[in-house]
Amino acid sequence: MIVSKASMQLSKFGKKITNYSGILELMDDLGRAMSGKEKKYMLGGGNPAHVPEMQKLFRKRMNEILNNKREFENIISNYDTPQGNLDFIEEFASFLKGQFGWNVTSKNIAIANGSQSAFFMLFNLLAGDMPDGKKKKILLPIVPEYIGYADQGISEDFFVSCKPKFEIIDKHAFKYHIDFNNLKITEDIAAICVSRPTNPTGNVVTDEEVDKLTDLAKKRGIPLIIDNAYGAPFPNVIFTDASLKWNENIILSFSLSKLGLPTSRTGIIVAKEEIATALSRANAIISLANGSLGQALIMPLLKDGKLIKISKNYIQPFYAQRSKQARKWIYKYFDDSLPYYIHINEGSFFLWLWFKDLPIISHVLYERLKKRDVLIVPGEYFFPGVRDKEWKHMGECIRINFGAAPVEDVEYGIKIIADEVRKAYNNRKKMAYSQNKSD
Amino acid sequence: MIVSKASMQLSKFGKKITNYSGILELMDDLGRAMSGKEKKYMLGGGNPAHVPEMQKLFRKRMNEILNNKREFENIISNYDTPQGNLDFIEEFASFLKGQFGWNVTSKNIAIANGSQSAFFMLFNLLAGDMPDGKKKKILLPIVPEYIGYADQGISEDFFVSCKPKFEIIDKHAFKYHIDFNNLKITEDIAAICVSRPTNPTGNVVTDEEVDKLTDLAKKRGIPLIIDNAYGAPFPNVIFTDASLKWNENIILSFSLSKLGLPTSRTGIIVAKEEIATALSRANAIISLANGSLGQALIMPLLKDGKLIKISKNYIQPFYAQRSKQARKWIYKYFDDSLPYYIHINEGSFFLWLWFKDLPIISHVLYERLKKRDVLIVPGEYFFPGVRDKEWKHMGECIRINFGAAPVEDVEYGIKIIADEVRKAYNNRKKMAYSQNKSD
Repeated sequence: MIVSKASMQLSKFGKKITNYSGILELMDDLGRAMSGKEKKYMLGGGNPAHVPEMQKLFRKRMNEILNNKREFENIISNYDTPQGNLDFIEEFASFLKGQFGWNVTSKNIAIANGSQSAFFMLFNLLAGDMPDGKKKKILLPIVPEYIGYADQGISEDFFVSCKPKFEIIDKHAFKYHIDFNNLKITEDIAAICVSRPTNPTGNVVTDEEVDKLTDLAKKRGIPLIIDNAYGAPFPNVIFTDASLKWNENIILSFSLSKLGLPTSRTGIIVAKEEIATALSRANAIISLANGSLGQALIMPLLKDGKLIKISKNYIQPFYAQRSKQARKWIYKYFDDSLPYYIHINEGSFFLWLWFKDLPIISHVLYERLKKRDVLIVPGEYFFPGVRDKEWKHMGECIRINFGAAPVEDVEYGIKIIADEVRKAYNNRKKMAYSQNKSD
Repeated sequence: MIVSKASMQLSKFGKKITNYSGILELMDDLGRAMSGKEKKYMLGGGNPAHVPEMQKLFRKRMNEILNNKREFENIISNYDTPQGNLDFIEEFASFLKGQFGWNVTSKNIAIANGSQSAFFMLFNLLAGDMPDGKKKKILLPIVPEYIGYADQGISEDFFVSCKPKFEIIDKHAFKYHIDFNNLKITEDIAAICVSRPTNPTGNVVTDEEVDKLTDLAKKRGIPLIIDNAYGAPFPNVIFTDASLKWNENIILSFSLSKLGLPTSRTGIIVAKEEIATALSRANAIISLANGSLGQALIMPLLKDGKLIKISKNYIQPFYAQRSKQARKWIYKYFDDSLPYYIHINEGSFFLWLWFKDLPIISHVLYERLKKRDVLIVPGEYFFPGVRDKEWKHMGECIRINFGAAPVEDVEYGIKIIADEVRKAYNNRKKMAYSQNKSD
């Protein structure tokens, strides 16, 4: 019998989707660190913090589910529709109406197994190979942008992005802005997408910028996708005033992950009916149905307003305080003479650090830190769609999560990062010096 | 300002994946029926039964999780790796080793958000557009086959299947067999796939048939995928002796759904390391991570053997008894003179009914039944990859779920089905009669 020993043949999709990706590295590091088998200083990944008040609430609600006659059994054993749980969807539509006065019904809502899965469907529904043989792309009007988008296109060359403008705020602070002068919305753009607050930078694209994007999208008859995973009104990890808008041209994405329910895999999309329906149809084929627990845990908290209150009174202050503290440690441990910059932190639970002219690329820094048990995410993964592969800024940044690890671990992690960054800069000085001497 | 009112443009993938599909119709019917807002006789869909002993066990385990210090908080708030929960994967590998003596380690295992999602990845990793410009297909060696596969290919013309041989057992019973004489494994076949027990027919492809498939696959160096969602050792909804084999050439899929945990969305793939790794990588990009609850609920029940015991002592007898009862009602309510056949029920919780020469296609029967609040699944959706679109057998069958609805609902449903089927046959007789008269 001839037994083929040849390596497995993968399809084009298979080759693309199984490439070693940033999001794989990040999630693998994270999952291993969270399993707690080895001591790690977990400043990588996007695990939310265990905010005590939130966890008390979830525990209470779980007990309530167990005490309500057959509620537990119905939640674990009865499939919802591919659109999601019908009661939850109704409730969520009322919630949006009540909060914002939007003209939203249950037909505008689609639930997915996490927003990662929702974006996979959304991006590929809209862009890629078109029926007329043309190709369309997703435009990221500003980078850095979420690492998880980067490999989601089924076809090649899926994203195009625009380098940001830099606002240097002070010696160690900066902010990115959308560079509207260089933002081209060509014929091959299927949709515009921005996360706000932005993962990884903690940037909040201004209301004015969003209005401009909305106008541009509307003029071209393409949707503007806003990923609101960290935004208001829940989890409300946002430290600046920013308004949330929705209309039929906007696709808005919410997530339960950052409330503290990442393993419930619950993403919520609000869009015009045509898009919500398309998502439900795709969801039936790709996922069959959604996990139900997240929706069940949250539903009464939407109804009685607790979710909003606790987001405002506990989640927001928790992360704001953590953010402040982390920045203090950076100022403390980093050599003031080094050209480091922290992106101003307007939201999310990440600090984005830029080491100007860093002599090593950030993935090398990541590896050196990992050897010392400090996990971070190297910055170069956060630049999907950048055509200028030589742009050295992409290798000069890192993202750190200041929310998930115990405070003493965050402090220790920052200390080690400062140490490795200093060494990297100093090595170059030394090398330059010895080169000068031998000249 | 020019506001485009044009309908949304979808990509090729988008057009294909948002077509109105059988699996959407089925899951939408099901989710709506299970939400209990209107009285429906739920013989459609694939919801598992609420088996009392199983539900007691899950409730007990959930209470245990809540009572174990911080176990609940860790489950809901800590991401696992894209491969799955590392402890669960270790445990599952030991379980397989202990049960079957297979040479399996954690590297052979990948968890996905339900087996639907696992199959979407698996199929598209292996088949479709290949890097060399060729196209490869998934071969279904026997149809009817699972409705949920039908639309999962990213590219067109994704499945090819082989019509079965019919064994007529008695006046009202039959069984399908793989027609090996007509089974061609051409160069463009990427993998062979079979569900066993088969959804929708309740067929269990014989050990001999599986051995033949294994040999054929091995000779061609392609994997044989066996979907074991209903099989042994859990949930063990199998009423015949059949052995479960695994080797590096077999991709085996398990599911927690049919244990009574469909909304935990937990699928488990056992395959050679290369494939398990590819699935984890794809999972990071498409889904980020998996829901954790299913794995957490099941883990200690794997360890102490309870899962096996309860599958054997409660789940299997529950469905076997339900199956027997449903068949009795069919014999009772169906006119014995009609040419109806029940596929022998060797596993799963479905009965597959074949109405030979039925004058209406089964989707019309489905619609007539739905008007009377009885939900079933029309048979024509279960024939993916059949090239002979005129094969009338495809429109002559229906699938009914005998497990999920209360027994009295199953009886009522069968009575109404019998009534509609009788009417359909009789109408033709009348039409034939009146045509004869008018001739």
